Amino acid sequence: MIGITLPDGSVKSVEAGTTPMDVAKSISEGLARNVISATYNDTTVEVTTPLTTDGSLTLHTWNDDAGKKAFWHSSAHILAQALEELYPGIKLWVGPAIERGFYYDVDLPEGQVISDKDFKTIENKMLEIARGKHDFKMREVSKADALAYYQGKNEYKVDLIEGLEDGEITFCDHSSFTDLCRGGHIPNTGIVKAVKILNVAGAYFKGDENEKQLTRVYGISFPKQKELTAYLELLEEAKKRDHRKLGKELELFTFSQRVGQGLPLWLPKGAALRERLESFLKAAQKKAGYQTVMSPHIGNKDLYVTSGHFAKYGEDSFQTIQTPHEGEEFMLKPMNCPHHCEMYKAKPWSYKELPVRYAEFGTVYRYEQSGELHGLTRVRGFTQDDAHIFCTPDQLNDEFMKVIDLVLYVFGSLGFEDFKSQVSIRDMSKPEKYIGDPEVWEKAEQAIINAAEQKGLDYVVEEGEAAFYGPKLDFMVKDALGRSWQLGTIQVDYNLPERFDLTYKGSDNESHRPVMIHRAPFGSLERFVAILLEHTGGNFPLWLMPEQVSILSLSEKYENYAQKVLNLLENSEIRALVDNRNETIGRKIREAEMKKIPYMIIVGEQEEKDGTIAVRKHSEGDMGTMKVEDFAAIIENDIKSTIKEFNV
Amino acid sequence: MIGITLPDGSVKSVEAGTTPMDVAKSISEGLARNVISATYNDTTVEVTTPLTTDGSLTLHTWNDDAGKKAFWHSSAHILAQALEELYPGIKLWVGPAIERGFYYDVDLPEGQVISDKDFKTIENKMLEIARGKHDFKMREVSKADALAYYQGKNEYKVDLIEGLEDGEITFCDHSSFTDLCRGGHIPNTGIVKAVKILNVAGAYFKGDENEKQLTRVYGISFPKQKELTAYLELLEEAKKRDHRKLGKELELFTFSQRVGQGLPLWLPKGAALRERLESFLKAAQKKAGYQTVMSPHIGNKDLYVTSGHFAKYGEDSFQTIQTPHEGEEFMLKPMNCPHHCEMYKAKPWSYKELPVRYAEFGTVYRYEQSGELHGLTRVRGFTQDDAHIFCTPDQLNDEFMKVIDLVLYVFGSLGFEDFKSQVSIRDMSKPEKYIGDPEVWEKAEQAIINAAEQKGLDYVVEEGEAAFYGPKLDFMVKDALGRSWQLGTIQVDYNLPERFDLTYKGSDNESHRPVMIHRAPFGSLERFVAILLEHTGGNFPLWLMPEQVSILSLSEKYENYAQKVLNLLENSEIRALVDNRNETIGRKIREAEMKKIPYMIIVGEQEEKDGTIAVRKHSEGDMGTMKVEDFAAIIENDIKSTIKEFNV
Repeated sequence: MIGITLPDGSVKSVEAGTTPMDVAKSISEGLARNVISATYNDTTVEVTTPLTTDGSLTLHTWNDDAGKKAFWHSSAHILAQALEELYPGIKLWVGPAIERGFYYDVDLPEGQVISDKDFKTIENKMLEIARGKHDFKMREVSKADALAYYQGKNEYKVDLIEGLEDGEITFCDHSSFTDLCRGGHIPNTGIVKAVKILNVAGAYFKGDENEKQLTRVYGISFPKQKELTAYLELLEEAKKRDHRKLGKELELFTFSQRVGQGLPLWLPKGAALRERLESFLKAAQKKAGYQTVMSPHIGNKDLYVTSGHFAKYGEDSFQTIQTPHEGEEFMLKPMNCPHHCEMYKAKPWSYKELPVRYAEFGTVYRYEQSGELHGLTRVRGFTQDDAHIFCTPDQLNDEFMKVIDLVLYVFGSLGFEDFKSQVSIRDMSKPEKYIGDPEVWEKAEQAIINAAEQKGLDYVVEEGEAAFYGPKLDFMVKDALGRSWQLGTIQVDYNLPERFDLTYKGSDNESHRPVMIHRAPFGSLERFVAILLEHTGGNFPLWLMPEQVSILSLSEKYENYAQKVLNLLENSEIRALVDNRNETIGRKIREAEMKKIPYMIIVGEQEEKDGTIAVRKHSEGDMGTMKVEDFAAIIENDIKSTIKEFNV
Repeated sequence: MIGITLPDGSVKSVEAGTTPMDVAKSISEGLARNVISATYNDTTVEVTTPLTTDGSLTLHTWNDDAGKKAFWHSSAHILAQALEELYPGIKLWVGPAIERGFYYDVDLPEGQVISDKDFKTIENKMLEIARGKHDFKMREVSKADALAYYQGKNEYKVDLIEGLEDGEITFCDHSSFTDLCRGGHIPNTGIVKAVKILNVAGAYFKGDENEKQLTRVYGISFPKQKELTAYLELLEEAKKRDHRKLGKELELFTFSQRVGQGLPLWLPKGAALRERLESFLKAAQKKAGYQTVMSPHIGNKDLYVTSGHFAKYGEDSFQTIQTPHEGEEFMLKPMNCPHHCEMYKAKPWSYKELPVRYAEFGTVYRYEQSGELHGLTRVRGFTQDDAHIFCTPDQLNDEFMKVIDLVLYVFGSLGFEDFKSQVSIRDMSKPEKYIGDPEVWEKAEQAIINAAEQKGLDYVVEEGEAAFYGPKLDFMVKDALGRSWQLGTIQVDYNLPERFDLTYKGSDNESHRPVMIHRAPFGSLERFVAILLEHTGGNFPLWLMPEQVSILSLSEKYENYAQKVLNLLENSEIRALVDNRNETIGRKIREAEMKKIPYMIIVGEQEEKDGTIAVRKHSEGDMGTMKVEDFAAIIENDIKSTIKEFNV
């Protein structure tokens, strides 16, 4: 008999050789129907693997990440079998599950290619295999047998096997198909009910551009057809909301090869949007006692040697900048903190003056490989809504809570209602990895957890995820398409105060080391605007919209009245524009809809006579005729409902 | 008989051999008393030089720059004689007049030095020589005689003579002193009535650090003692107003060796001041139809090769930035225009959409030798209040006038009442130096002159001062100490539209080249803040002051009332702070005065009881007791009197 501990802590005593599926069945038939993979003692196992020692068992369904991983990994096997049948002579390399779906890297027979028009055939073949309900069966193979199996037929698998230890090599069989595999499958192919081949791309063997280029076939699969349909709709919607596409359509930003990849140029409407975001945060920060500072975009190499950033960014990033003066070297700043430390050092501080909170919309530069650049989400220059708080260790708790308040205010005002957070603490078993006094760490970690608790955050604690210089709290928001984005971060830092020898005079008249908090609610303004674009599809909260109202004149005769309405709106600080072009009203409305302008005002003879305006709302239509002041009140209420005052 | 043309165009017929002084006497005895030097046919002559050919004569007095130059050059001779008498064995090199005063570079006898405590002795010796009323007398000397005079006694003068042509060498004698000299003196030493030795410094022979280090003795002299007194007071005042000193005292900015020389760090109060200046200009620019854009601080090398800036800044400035990608090179941006050109190129333009006005507070980086750096006036990174207007050639005239309006508004709001402007046009004799069609140039130059005329500017036209790419208009303001500073500039540019192939579609449906206007009313925000600090001595216009009011509580008992007053002021958008420290009211007032806070409010028992405040004005004193709302009205009026609305 062996003892199997379940996630709820209960222990089941069962015969050695019992499988995870047996355990599932012993709990409930319903569970057994849904279980598709399992983890035993932190190792992925098959649901059919006989358990022979005491241990902890977790059963996975499609709803878990681990369940999906097994599902998609198994689907990659089905894809491989389908490809072998469709392209005889094909050679397989590896086929993992990825965040969404799976791929397989294959070497196609000479002269063959896979393109869009082949996707349907592959999908059909995969579904045919799936419907066979073939069990996935693992078996151990000696290294010699494994090599013999592939020798002369597939040099890629031979290469993989050569890197493995004898005794740890397993094959997986299903139907007529066999693959070298570590395991972690669903019970049988029949669970896969819907598949879609998404894409093909080139991929070098071993990721090395000197090796042969293979073909990577991407796919995704689901246990229900309707889940695939929903996923494809989501993909379609995501394409429409792609911030690169919207950014161009709404004339927010552009890129230029001559300026350089990954270096966004903010066009007037985008710059106005950014300024609005900055003003919004500045106003809240002012209330919260932050002070704006400004620092240059370069610094002497010594600055970054002192801070440690040179060691981190020096080699793989933008190289140092030489000057006509021999030996002088500057660096583009990868972070603002070293500059803020030097500002702190500009005068002596007393504990009575702390905390000091320096805030800066600081543009930093970090080199990314051109292949990794992506619109505004991966760039080479970006602006952090950065701030550094220098406080006494006693103030840490309170300061941390205040920062959380600010972050929550920002998320709320921008329509991100769904977010999670993660407290990253030390790996307790490796104290040598961290700088600073363990007692101080303990206090700081507890301060973060307390703050998260008191603020009612939905948080997890991840051991070993802290930076070497201190614990942190990260926020992940979910966008309207259900995708997660890492946004704001709050980090405690014991390292830089040490490296820069920052001090303050305590009440004991002695010199002490302040603690630093790094924080950025948006993270990067570029990335944040990208996420906001994809989250809202360009329909920003009204207070952020570059143009809130478009005034459409029915004909040129009403130009003067349109201008009068514009002036009235501008007096109420409403951002409006007049469309006086000699176009049909239908076309003017369509174009305003395309530009996602929240409100349209139509003025013609009747309106001019009555001194009224006819109002339409974006994507909702007619709101009737009203006075300008009543419309202004509607706008004001709309804005007040999303952006509240920040109260400290 | 020869004909002498005077500045008013009249021609005097006189005997050959007549001197400038003779001419002065023939005009009036009063003039003759004041004439101290002369220019004949654009060459400096002595007032005693016999004129032997027809020519144009200008007579100079102390009030002309040329007169001062002769005065100070002559004073350098007196200084040299004094030094020879006081330090026997001294060797002279050169002693020119400079912008304010003169210096002499000398090699002191072995073991001797000149220090502050010797200044009085030198001054007395100079005055003793001056009182001798010795005439300055020029004489021609052959190269052989000149060399013989100095050989074995002064290797520096020998070196100078060796570089001269025989026949053009002259000596100047006065009293017992003789010097190698080109001429340009006042009639005699007696005109110098007041002298001051200002400073001594090291200076290398020929400016070459491999040569011997000589001693440079700086002095200044005047025709009246009271002028020297006024000058020394001005020096004293300038020292007090030195922006580096005030910037530190008022905690506006700091520098850090680790960040790098010439890279200012804006501390909270300075950053707030800058933001206020930026908001002020942004508001006016918005009214004037400018759109804010934002661009990165680096660009691909290609961008600057295209713009031509690489050729100008590539070698002697910050070097290019390499990346891990072989052959990829970026540059810190020395100017914003190339980025704005690329933004203009992001879409096609119709003449109906022009002018387009892109504005950016763009921080640029240019390398300056460390010896040339000076506080905020000479830095390595600075923020331009930059804008580029893209317009049709027909719009140039109108746009130029609008820019002048904006510049004048800026100067007026910041208290610069006294300014001059300069229109820089082509050198008509060298058409090859300029790019673009001469007809277009002609039109642009005329547009600028017309605009200057129509706007009633006090301007001069300088031929040959235009940039190769277009004519320009510069503004020079005079500060409170009478010093001139070059500030704003407006430049027409035909070059960049060509280099970037910028186009718009004209009403003829053909593609045309727009004209660009570069403009920056402040020029550089760093430099502007420095000038503003020295102009106002830190007493900024009220609307700009980081802290407008300091509320001083008579004792801790009135803390609550002080806080209440603060809240009331903040509601009226007045920037105030509370000084609740346990200090005497006298000390609190002194410190608020030191910090140049414009208003102080004193609150104690009586004020709390009556719900009033006692008000003091900076450097003026008691203003009596009043209600907070009456005080708020005073502030509002004060602000309105300096900063007006910008009306387009």
